[in-house]
Amino acid sequence: MSLLTVGSVAFDAIETPFGKTDKIIGGAGTYIALSSSYFTNDQKIVSVVGEDFPNETLEDLKARGIDIDGIQIKEGEKTFFWSGKYHNDMNSRDTLVTELNVLGDFDPIIPESYQGVDYLMLGNLAPSVQRQVIERLNERPKLIAMDTMNFWMDIAWDDLMQTIKMVDVLIINDEEARQLSKEYSLVKAAKVIMDMGPKYLIIKKGEHGALLFNTNGNVFFAPALPLEEVFDPTGAGDTFAGGFVGYLAKTDDISFDNMKRAVVTGSAMASFCVEKFGTERLQNLSQGEIYNRIMEFVDLAQFDIKKELV
Amino acid sequence: MSLLTVGSVAFDAIETPFGKTDKIIGGAGTYIALSSSYFTNDQKIVSVVGEDFPNETLEDLKARGIDIDGIQIKEGEKTFFWSGKYHNDMNSRDTLVTELNVLGDFDPIIPESYQGVDYLMLGNLAPSVQRQVIERLNERPKLIAMDTMNFWMDIAWDDLMQTIKMVDVLIINDEEARQLSKEYSLVKAAKVIMDMGPKYLIIKKGEHGALLFNTNGNVFFAPALPLEEVFDPTGAGDTFAGGFVGYLAKTDDISFDNMKRAVVTGSAMASFCVEKFGTERLQNLSQGEIYNRIMEFVDLAQFDIKKELV
Repeated sequence: MSLLTVGSVAFDAIETPFGKTDKIIGGAGTYIALSSSYFTNDQKIVSVVGEDFPNETLEDLKARGIDIDGIQIKEGEKTFFWSGKYHNDMNSRDTLVTELNVLGDFDPIIPESYQGVDYLMLGNLAPSVQRQVIERLNERPKLIAMDTMNFWMDIAWDDLMQTIKMVDVLIINDEEARQLSKEYSLVKAAKVIMDMGPKYLIIKKGEHGALLFNTNGNVFFAPALPLEEVFDPTGAGDTFAGGFVGYLAKTDDISFDNMKRAVVTGSAMASFCVEKFGTERLQNLSQGEIYNRIMEFVDLAQFDIKKELV
Repeated sequence: MSLLTVGSVAFDAIETPFGKTDKIIGGAGTYIALSSSYFTNDQKIVSVVGEDFPNETLEDLKARGIDIDGIQIKEGEKTFFWSGKYHNDMNSRDTLVTELNVLGDFDPIIPESYQGVDYLMLGNLAPSVQRQVIERLNERPKLIAMDTMNFWMDIAWDDLMQTIKMVDVLIINDEEARQLSKEYSLVKAAKVIMDMGPKYLIIKKGEHGALLFNTNGNVFFAPALPLEEVFDPTGAGDTFAGGFVGYLAKTDDISFDNMKRAVVTGSAMASFCVEKFGTERLQNLSQGEIYNRIMEFVDLAQFDIKKELV
């Protein structure tokens, strides 16, 4: 099934305890699209870059079967740039630089050829921009998933509420779930957030795994793979989202059981992402590596308990 | 199979955001024994109390099939007392009072009838006392599991190293694993700790679940049940240990697959413990409630992913 990804295609500069990068390719849209490209060959992306963005990166996305007609290239303007530094525990980071550049007035244009898309993944962007994308699609996709962050809760609450109401799956982290719901308990938070509109909620807990809730009261927990080293967490959440929605687009099944598999797939993809700086690890994965990693999750989480053994 | 539990039988006074108790029954040995009593009828306990300890509590343990001949009652002395206050997030607490009393010079006497026990659970105590218990058993049990805490790492490192070397399973929390190994990554920490002697390591992560490692490189992760409310976390770790070792004693199978089930069982028991103050919830569980709770863990963690779906 076809998948439309909307999100930033950008430059990052990252510092972790393991080293420091120059300007490298980043952006939520990039991570999502790379990750989901392992699951679907029918992917389209809507984004915007400046004239400083390398053409070879765009060509690389195209070579991965991603339709880039929806990436606007703004002459005379610069690409979105973010720079951050991770602390020793890798669980917190400081933003050093944010230059919105072309993202400052992003008007998401949907090419005519993108109409009729089956799945929609809205990467983290201003909620008004995310909503514009939904409104500019002639037909509502089968499933709309959305990421967001604290920043929009702080400065665009009403916009965010309007957009959240329109989506099926919200994907946020634990801190964001607590801020959005004003509840500390994630179980209570999930109820409050699903009352805002989404039928499904994924709460990412970083190294502590991810929870999937639905409005029928089902809960699923996927662990994160225990890793010796987290090299660079940048993009892990977007890579998770890409694996999740890519798997759904591939299998075209939005039952809760299949969403569980999609969450495990997203977790597996995220576990690759953090092994190297930036998008490096996501560039050259084989299907065999992905399959083996998913099987590591099976070994990690599966147990067999029977009534007579309890 | 028979199980010997060694640990404090004590008084606690607890304050959480939900309320405050007077002196209630607590102690690692109490929580472990109550929890494992749901799985084995052949349990013995070694501990010490003062003359202020209520006889009816001892009789209650006895009524649960626990052999209390190994609980020394010290005339003219007072029972161990701990008082603590939990912060709003329930993940951290301040100790308000610690009165060692009878625990100060605890000499763990093993009744002759306890000899030949199959499973041994060493609750958190001075590592020298834990070691004495092992040394006073004529035959080494099939499996020795041990809990400890930061405090002993700070003041009795050499003793702790000696005792850890003698046990099969070490059960500690993530913070303790990091302090013990001097590694932040739990995967690295696990390797360092298993090099100290234990063939199995359980790292409890509270609301984030528990990891089981063995020296063959196997890893298993059991989630914690997402709860609306954690009423009082006191004793949850001991209750986990009791469920874990009780399940092993019941099934008499120390394969990795069965240890996985034991970890899930421990997690289920811990999820009951936190629902009420102190040991209250552990006093009146039915086998049906326990079975249903374990099935909630199955629903929470299980997924079915097949090669053709990846």
